[in-house]
Amino acid sequence: MVQFDAGFRQTLAELFAWRRDVRRFRGDPVDETLLRRCLDLAALSPSVGNSQPWRFVRVTNPARRAAVTRSFEHCNEAAATGYAAERRDVYIRLKLAGLHEAPVHLAVFCDEATESGHGLGRATMPEMLRYSVVGAVQTFWLAARAHGLGVGWVSILEPETVCTVLEVPCAWHLVAYLCVGFPVEEHTDPELVRHGWQDRVAAALIER
Amino acid sequence: MVQFDAGFRQTLAELFAWRRDVRRFRGDPVDETLLRRCLDLAALSPSVGNSQPWRFVRVTNPARRAAVTRSFEHCNEAAATGYAAERRDVYIRLKLAGLHEAPVHLAVFCDEATESGHGLGRATMPEMLRYSVVGAVQTFWLAARAHGLGVGWVSILEPETVCTVLEVPCAWHLVAYLCVGFPVEEHTDPELVRHGWQDRVAAALIER
Repeated sequence: MVQFDAGFRQTLAELFAWRRDVRRFRGDPVDETLLRRCLDLAALSPSVGNSQPWRFVRVTNPARRAAVTRSFEHCNEAAATGYAAERRDVYIRLKLAGLHEAPVHLAVFCDEATESGHGLGRATMPEMLRYSVVGAVQTFWLAARAHGLGVGWVSILEPETVCTVLEVPCAWHLVAYLCVGFPVEEHTDPELVRHGWQDRVAAALIER
Repeated sequence: MVQFDAGFRQTLAELFAWRRDVRRFRGDPVDETLLRRCLDLAALSPSVGNSQPWRFVRVTNPARRAAVTRSFEHCNEAAATGYAAERRDVYIRLKLAGLHEAPVHLAVFCDEATESGHGLGRATMPEMLRYSVVGAVQTFWLAARAHGLGVGWVSILEPETVCTVLEVPCAWHLVAYLCVGFPVEEHTDPELVRHGWQDRVAAALIER
């Protein structure tokens, strides 16, 4: 059985801690081989019934990228108006996406029509198919960070708009829209902690 | 900026490949410190608005564990009847959970009522809260495997039954039910590949 030693475990813990959601990217391009390597690693994620329902779409077309960015800006303005006074001021100062700067836009979908997996494990929990894609996103994120890349997950978007703009099959459900590139800054703490939005809380273990 | 070297990246790739869904566990207990270490690492996962909505529940009560196991058995029998002829034969031969043997049962919930994160990032994609919990499960899985533990995700369950049996708050939504313990066997290939259920497929990168 493959054993992992204490040195690896220590560095793995650093990877988890240093993963970070990145919103400030350098402009230099991401090497094709590097991107594909990270996607291949993401595809080693667990999936319900081994269904592997993840579908990765790289968005390079400028008009499409602009349309997605407009969707973000629209949703972000709407979200800001939902907060009162001081919290709104904090919200407005946050930088919540790096869509303009990121050299790579990666939309990640769940193919709800896939026959892979033959439905195993999702009769009572059909959401498992989308959860499998989420696991792949987290794996991609860790792989990317280990290779020096930063990833930011943008969820302030209208999913239907993204599906329409990217002309994907109707059965594909948007799970994540990722900005990928080399980060400008380095931080040990999450952006939302640093700017007073939300502190870390301890993870409790509840007994039953 | 923290850099990860080629040796670490190679071992990380092995961790991704060797993670595996484990259904065959040894009976020896999992050290408390080890379990809590893996949970602390899971809590380093990204979460929408830094909401950290994961709630970990360890199930030790024998009556509760038995009730969850009955739910699995019931759902598994129902699922088997849904397959035709040869595929049903394959399904019945699969071992899909290690609930009887696993020393640790860990139910992972999403606290939908949490105020942490102040709703940031989930106005248009409210599912982001549950997705944050899924990311933590994948992180826990990798951390556990790096420490020699095996994890199996059981989704052939009635979520409502699990919530009732575990007497968790109404606003907690079941995301994952995990079996945790030291694995009996070692495999490089997924159980579902080995037993002819579903092969691996290549992850394509689609351009838009």
